[in-house]
Amino acid sequence: MATSRMAAARTPRGPRASRARAAAAPAGADRRVRLDLDRRRAQLLELGIDLFSKHSYEDMSIDGVAEAAGISKGLLYHYFRSKRDFYVETVRAASRRLQLLTTPDPALPPAARLRAAIDAHLRYIQEHGPVYTAVYRNGVAIAPEIREILDQHRGVIVQYFLEAMGATKPPPLLRTALRSWMAMVEGASLDWIDNPVITRDALRELLVAGYAALIAKTVELEAEADAANAIRAD
Amino acid sequence: MATSRMAAARTPRGPRASRARAAAAPAGADRRVRLDLDRRRAQLLELGIDLFSKHSYEDMSIDGVAEAAGISKGLLYHYFRSKRDFYVETVRAASRRLQLLTTPDPALPPAARLRAAIDAHLRYIQEHGPVYTAVYRNGVAIAPEIREILDQHRGVIVQYFLEAMGATKPPPLLRTALRSWMAMVEGASLDWIDNPVITRDALRELLVAGYAALIAKTVELEAEADAANAIRAD
Repeated sequence: MATSRMAAARTPRGPRASRARAAAAPAGADRRVRLDLDRRRAQLLELGIDLFSKHSYEDMSIDGVAEAAGISKGLLYHYFRSKRDFYVETVRAASRRLQLLTTPDPALPPAARLRAAIDAHLRYIQEHGPVYTAVYRNGVAIAPEIREILDQHRGVIVQYFLEAMGATKPPPLLRTALRSWMAMVEGASLDWIDNPVITRDALRELLVAGYAALIAKTVELEAEADAANAIRAD
Repeated sequence: MATSRMAAARTPRGPRASRARAAAAPAGADRRVRLDLDRRRAQLLELGIDLFSKHSYEDMSIDGVAEAAGISKGLLYHYFRSKRDFYVETVRAASRRLQLLTTPDPALPPAARLRAAIDAHLRYIQEHGPVYTAVYRNGVAIAPEIREILDQHRGVIVQYFLEAMGATKPPPLLRTALRSWMAMVEGASLDWIDNPVITRDALRELLVAGYAALIAKTVELEAEADAANAIRAD
C-alpha cells in the first residue's frame, strides 16, 4: 500500500485512477510490473504534452497517438479510456510538472526565491507555449475537468506563498491579492507566447514588481482596517 | 449616410449588421422608422444582458426571449438571426457599455481618473456578475466571435491609457505591462464575483497599486535599455 502510494506520487495521475489501481494492486509480487506500467504511462503523458503542442485536440486522433508512441491502439486503451481521458491526464501531468518546477527553493532568500520560481515558469511556457495557450483558451470547452485542474494548480501556488509567510488560510485581502497576481501571471504568459516582444528577464521583473506592489498594498490596507477596528473597539 | 452612422454609434451592434442596414437605408423618409428599429434593438440587447445574467445560454430559448420581451418570435427574428446571434450581439453591447462607463474623464487628474474608471468597472461587474463570469468562462465555447469582442475590448482600454500618455503605438514593454494589468483586472474581477470577501474600495486600491508598479517598472526597464543602447552606440 505504501509502495503504491509512493509510485502514485512519483507518476502524476488522477486521484480516481490511482485509487482504483492501489485497490487492485497485488501485495508485492507484481511491483516491478506495476512500476513499469507507471513509467510507461508517464512516458505517454510526456509524449502527450509534445503532441498537443504540435496538434490541436480536434486534429489529434487515438491512432495518431498510438503511432507516435510506437504502440498498438489496444495497448494505448489499456492506459487511457479515450482521447479525452488522454488529454485530461496530459494536462494534469503538465500541471504537476509545472508545480514541481516552480516549487520555492527554501535555500534562497525570499526575493531570489520568487525570481527563480517565475523564471522556471517562464522557461516552461517558452518551451511549451502552444500547449499552454491551447489549455487556457480551449481546455475547459474540451473537458470541464480542465477547470478543476487549473483551479487546483492555482491553489497549490497560493499554498507556496502562504507556507513562505507561515500562514495557513489567507486573510481575504491576501487571498484576493494572490489570486489577482496569478491572473496577471497567466494573462501575461498567454500574451507573451503570442507576442514575445520583450525578454524573459523583463517580463519576470514586471511580474515581480506587480507582486511586490500587491503585497505591500495588502499590508497597508490590513493595517488601516486594524486601526479602524481598534478605534471602534475603544 | 451621416445620420445612419450616428444612429449606429448610439446603438451598439456588429459592424456587418450596421453596414448592411446603412446600405439598405432609404434616403431620409424612413429615418424615424429606422431609429425606432434601432431603439427597439438596443432595448432587446439590454434585456439580453438581464436574461443572460439569470439563465445560462443553454437554458435560454428564443421563445423565452420573445416572451420576456413581450413580442412575437417572428418579430424577434427580424432583429436577430438566431439565439447565438442574439447572444453575440448582447455581449457586444455589454462590451460597448462597459467601454463607455470606463472612458477616462479628462476633467479629473490622472490618479483620480484611473480610480474613477476602475470604480465604474467594478460597479458594473458587481451589478452584472453572473453574465460577466459566463462570458469570460464560456463565451468563446458558445461562439468564437466572443474572443474577438473581448480582444477588441482590451484594445480599447489600452488605447485609453495610450491617449492619456500621448502615445499611439505602445513600445513593447508598455504593451506587455498594460496587457498584464488588464489580465489582472479580469482575473481579480472573476475571483471577486465568486468570492466578494473584500470591499470594492479595497479591490480598487489593489488594482491601482498593481498598475502603478507595472508602469514604474516599465519606465525603469526602458531607461535601463536606453542607457545600455547609448553605451553600445558610443
